[in-house]
Amino acid sequence: MSPFVPGPAIRIEGRAGGPLSGLAFAAKDLFDVAGHPTGGGNPDWARQNPIPDRHAWAVQTLLDAGATLIGKTITDEVSLGILGENAFDGTPENPAAPGHVPGGSSSGSASAVAAGLCDIALGTDTGGSVRVPASFCGLHGIRPTHGRLDLTGMLPQAPSSDTTGWFARDAGTFARASTVLLQETMPADLPARLVVATDAFGFAEPATAAALQPLLDRLKRLVPVWREDVMAPPGLVAWARAQRTLQPVEAWATFRTWVERDNPRFAFSVAKGLVMGAMTPEADQGWAALTRQEARGRLAQLLPPGTILVMPTTPFPAPPTGLPLPALTPLRDAILCLCAQGGLAGHPQISVPGATVDGRPVGLSLLAARGADTLLIRTALALETA
Amino acid sequence: MSPFVPGPAIRIEGRAGGPLSGLAFAAKDLFDVAGHPTGGGNPDWARQNPIPDRHAWAVQTLLDAGATLIGKTITDEVSLGILGENAFDGTPENPAAPGHVPGGSSSGSASAVAAGLCDIALGTDTGGSVRVPASFCGLHGIRPTHGRLDLTGMLPQAPSSDTTGWFARDAGTFARASTVLLQETMPADLPARLVVATDAFGFAEPATAAALQPLLDRLKRLVPVWREDVMAPPGLVAWARAQRTLQPVEAWATFRTWVERDNPRFAFSVAKGLVMGAMTPEADQGWAALTRQEARGRLAQLLPPGTILVMPTTPFPAPPTGLPLPALTPLRDAILCLCAQGGLAGHPQISVPGATVDGRPVGLSLLAARGADTLLIRTALALETA
Repeated sequence: MSPFVPGPAIRIEGRAGGPLSGLAFAAKDLFDVAGHPTGGGNPDWARQNPIPDRHAWAVQTLLDAGATLIGKTITDEVSLGILGENAFDGTPENPAAPGHVPGGSSSGSASAVAAGLCDIALGTDTGGSVRVPASFCGLHGIRPTHGRLDLTGMLPQAPSSDTTGWFARDAGTFARASTVLLQETMPADLPARLVVATDAFGFAEPATAAALQPLLDRLKRLVPVWREDVMAPPGLVAWARAQRTLQPVEAWATFRTWVERDNPRFAFSVAKGLVMGAMTPEADQGWAALTRQEARGRLAQLLPPGTILVMPTTPFPAPPTGLPLPALTPLRDAILCLCAQGGLAGHPQISVPGATVDGRPVGLSLLAARGADTLLIRTALALETA
Repeated sequence: MSPFVPGPAIRIEGRAGGPLSGLAFAAKDLFDVAGHPTGGGNPDWARQNPIPDRHAWAVQTLLDAGATLIGKTITDEVSLGILGENAFDGTPENPAAPGHVPGGSSSGSASAVAAGLCDIALGTDTGGSVRVPASFCGLHGIRPTHGRLDLTGMLPQAPSSDTTGWFARDAGTFARASTVLLQETMPADLPARLVVATDAFGFAEPATAAALQPLLDRLKRLVPVWREDVMAPPGLVAWARAQRTLQPVEAWATFRTWVERDNPRFAFSVAKGLVMGAMTPEADQGWAALTRQEARGRLAQLLPPGTILVMPTTPFPAPPTGLPLPALTPLRDAILCLCAQGGLAGHPQISVPGATVDGRPVGLSLLAARGADTLLIRTALALETA
């Protein structure tokens, strides 16, 4: 299945002479491209919303820097999904693990970069939607510090967690795009301290944790002052439940007006998520918000400037396509146990490739202090050649 | 919007010389027609189920009696809907009230008969799906005694309430089709006693109750031994809540395997109904089942052989098309308050036309003892010429 949305071909040349000249990029179909519908992965969203007359901030920024837009990519419906199977548009191929899901919701963006159809692709990450496909497709992918990038022209889902992220195959291209989108050059120094998240490595499937060990060993050589610690003292599951409580409530608030007005079509699983968001008791929201506050405090404490944390991006490599819902639900929830800190605490996180389980990629994730996004990319550059 | 499902035209000639020779009929797309997909009003149902190799019992019975099948008609998705708006196939026109819904889920069948495109049409009625479109489109429509007809080849929804029903414009044609499908001739005698359901007339909007008064007066002249009584002593709302509790639980049991395997697409409102069915607590089901038992006892007591009950079919005429969900939900629930006795108690009920509110039809309903379906049709014949 092509990673691009159906419809007329799109090609918008980047500005000549920019720092990204010669690079091609794609944009997840949640980003506005002037003159083209923003499909959002759902035919009723596409039909019921006006065609934008200006580019999203991230698209315009890459064009201004010289990269050429070559297409819009398939996304899970209105970004509600983590596996990359869209009942309307189909499932983009995972070139790194044929027959397995690409991960979502930035499924087409990851698929297009992994297939070599472009050098960079824009995605969004609310609950893992860049990190998971980066892990499953063997790419570099970033969820930047929450609130750092201008999200103008990007379809929102849960604003307290939404971010714009991006993918690349190699650390050099990833760093070039990141310099432009973060509007900051890479720091000279590597991190001073490394925290190995023992709970996250313990939660991952043993084969995945073992596969990541050589990468982790290289990282320890780059950052020799390291220690082990627990990332989530109340449990990764408690954090996942908090994110699973808060995010659907916000998603329902985002889409409610449209849903109630137009009664749009969704895959059953997507509609169910929205119904759950609508039905979440206020008391549950209250406890989840306190858990988020606690998680923010914990990550701020673990990650002072100059420190990074390392953990598996996903507990396992990409599952096969076409699994029934009762088999998918526990996989989705297990993935969230390793992703929830992103939406809860808003720290920057990158996933770097380099390990496989039975031939399927799994990513290693690095987190840093809020605002220290470039420190992570600096580390990825060093790790690639270490 | 055409009342017929998209696809190749269908025409199957009836047997020559039968009692329905010269009549044309259509079948709701929940009935099997050999060699054609049973679409069920949902593209994923149509795609994921095999093409039947034999006709449904009701289709075969009408063909054997000489009627000619001229098409399959649009239905609400897998019969889950009462207004007749299908997000995939569109909303069949209501020829009797342009710009207003036809009622559902047997929307296309009612629309086709009302437009004169055929003489008879098959529908299904679980929670009101024949009675409501009969009322909104100004037709004769029947929900037969539950369990009386052979439902082979009809897509089920909630088996303890599912029935096969049918529509016609005039009482004579309605009686001809009914003789064939009920396999019983019309009785000579009119009912001996009439019960006017005061709670149901009180629940209907005043304009609707007033519009039905002339028809009711004619009925009282046909059945001069009449009295007023309450149909639902615990309240029509209590009966509606019981049906709304039990029916989605059964519908989820019917469709669960398919939904969990294929994650099909639904309009949001349809998916929400299935989610609600899946989430209904057992204790709620228990109380609802007791309310059903109580309702069965009440109707058996009210309707000994020879007695009929009269009530408005719907509390109002057809609402406009395209209302948003928050406006539709209370309308749907109000309709159920006048329909729940059908699914709960299984007594036969017909809706007869003859009244309008602001030019839009509303139907008058007659109920009888279980098995006394033909007594109702006998009454409709007399009422038409009274």
